Amino acid sequence: MKKLINDPAAVVAEALRGMAAAHPELRVDHENRIVFRGDAPVRGKVGLVSGGGSGHEPMHGGFVGPGMLDAACAGEVFTSPVPDQMVAATQGVDGGAGVLHIVKNYTGDVMNFEMAAELVETEVETVVVDDDVAVQDSLYTAGRRGVGTTVLLEKIVGAAAEQGRPLAEVAAVARKVDDRGRSMGMALTSCTVPAAGHPTFELPETEMEIGIGIHGEPGRRRVPLAPAREIAEMLVEPVLSDLDFTADPVICFVNGMGASPLLELYLMYGEVAALLEKAGVRVARSLVGPYITSLDMAGCSVTLLSADDDLLGLWDAPVNTPGLRWGA
Amino acid sequence: MKKLINDPAAVVAEALRGMAAAHPELRVDHENRIVFRGDAPVRGKVGLVSGGGSGHEPMHGGFVGPGMLDAACAGEVFTSPVPDQMVAATQGVDGGAGVLHIVKNYTGDVMNFEMAAELVETEVETVVVDDDVAVQDSLYTAGRRGVGTTVLLEKIVGAAAEQGRPLAEVAAVARKVDDRGRSMGMALTSCTVPAAGHPTFELPETEMEIGIGIHGEPGRRRVPLAPAREIAEMLVEPVLSDLDFTADPVICFVNGMGASPLLELYLMYGEVAALLEKAGVRVARSLVGPYITSLDMAGCSVTLLSADDDLLGLWDAPVNTPGLRWGA
Repeated sequence: MKKLINDPAAVVAEALRGMAAAHPELRVDHENRIVFRGDAPVRGKVGLVSGGGSGHEPMHGGFVGPGMLDAACAGEVFTSPVPDQMVAATQGVDGGAGVLHIVKNYTGDVMNFEMAAELVETEVETVVVDDDVAVQDSLYTAGRRGVGTTVLLEKIVGAAAEQGRPLAEVAAVARKVDDRGRSMGMALTSCTVPAAGHPTFELPETEMEIGIGIHGEPGRRRVPLAPAREIAEMLVEPVLSDLDFTADPVICFVNGMGASPLLELYLMYGEVAALLEKAGVRVARSLVGPYITSLDMAGCSVTLLSADDDLLGLWDAPVNTPGLRWGA
Repeated sequence: MKKLINDPAAVVAEALRGMAAAHPELRVDHENRIVFRGDAPVRGKVGLVSGGGSGHEPMHGGFVGPGMLDAACAGEVFTSPVPDQMVAATQGVDGGAGVLHIVKNYTGDVMNFEMAAELVETEVETVVVDDDVAVQDSLYTAGRRGVGTTVLLEKIVGAAAEQGRPLAEVAAVARKVDDRGRSMGMALTSCTVPAAGHPTFELPETEMEIGIGIHGEPGRRRVPLAPAREIAEMLVEPVLSDLDFTADPVICFVNGMGASPLLELYLMYGEVAALLEKAGVRVARSLVGPYITSLDMAGCSVTLLSADDDLLGLWDAPVNTPGLRWGA
């Protein structure tokens, strides 16, 4: 296993130490493994808490800061954080206007966030992101998995909270983003979990997995390697068949799984954009890069979000986090 | 070879097509393979042109925009652009205040930029970046190679040009950044050039290469795999021995080579920061992520820049490019 780590068991704690050193504007609670905005709690603002297993960086810790999350709980690699972490995060961002939990749809995360919501005095709303069209149920999920839409949702809902919208309205924006976002991913290679020390699954040199999950969960099917053009079709077609994306313009997000270089992601974006044009889908904004990753997996995913004027305005609003930053 | 591409010979052209689709605020000259600021040439502003072989994305095309480069020429993968491209780029950004060529120290790039400078009417100054402490001469270089400092230099000098400083002053800032920046890199794995179809070099499962170049050029030595803590020492020690970094605070840049996930890069940053603290080096700013890459190579590099108040102010100034964006 070739990785820039020390002890495989200490990866998450040591990466958080590095984040704290690199980002003095954030506050890291090392005991509870929570990344906080430096000025949390912000009085009168709805607090946004997310979190999940580590190994998907920059999500979620890299999305903490003004205009996005107030706190992110880091679990072990590909393992849900525990309710105690979510309780501490919720209490730490409670500025008196309630807290929204943003939860990707994996059984452990959903259960632990639910327990945490019951344990705190704070008023909590929850949105569960389930945007992956690849499979209906999965290794770690009942219902669809939460993947790329989470990145767009955390940005957009972060802006809504920053504007001072009340909890019910912030939660409604979150649900609207989840309703209007769809994703599909693929892998060229497996990832390797540090504690395991070997690839999560075997994928022959001549094959790829279409519909992969962000933890290496099986997708829809294994197929022979194909050109980027055909890969784009295999990802875009199921997304477009699942929802009508012609009414409003879309935010088009081509995500890297971790090990695929930006050169390839831009090439993929070109293929995706061409397919969307052919399908009569208008692209209003784009995002290209590794934002919701799966350790060192090579591959990509495509997320489309049908965005009305409100969502586009919130997308364009200033954000200042390690992973996404503009206008601030 | 597992890559998100179509024809290996068309990778650069197709990636540029994707960049153009994703970034309508830029203007891509597909024939000459140049990425321009959408509003180039900017009247009265010194124009900044860089470029080099592709495969290092986001550098250089991803660093084009207000506050950074005016144009970037894309060569084939790991191959210098030709003088005609640099001529077209120089003419396209000439706003009447002269043009600065920012050239990484590789023989082909230096020669071609020199020829281009002679072919244009425009007043041209040139800065050659040679910050890699790993080796004195190398496969493609007389003198030190240009690596990570290039990213910091393009940001800082871009801000100086944006402020309206005259050409001589902008060039002086560029030379100052090169004088005060040092880097050292390492690889866990080789990269694979699409047109070659196989890894550039063989690196056994139990070894890594210290002092690697960004094209897979040999480094200082091959050593057994080691923990991140020891890797950090192998990179930081040669940098600190080469220049005194205790007088001014530093910008500390931990760069990913392409396939190393952000989780590992933050872990590395933590190790680097601890070593700098022990050495009495004060960190003023940080940058962590894959900014000057080597296709799908796994590994990292460390760049330190001794930054006085002027350089820090220029670093903090607004920038709006696909690869670096803040305050704008």
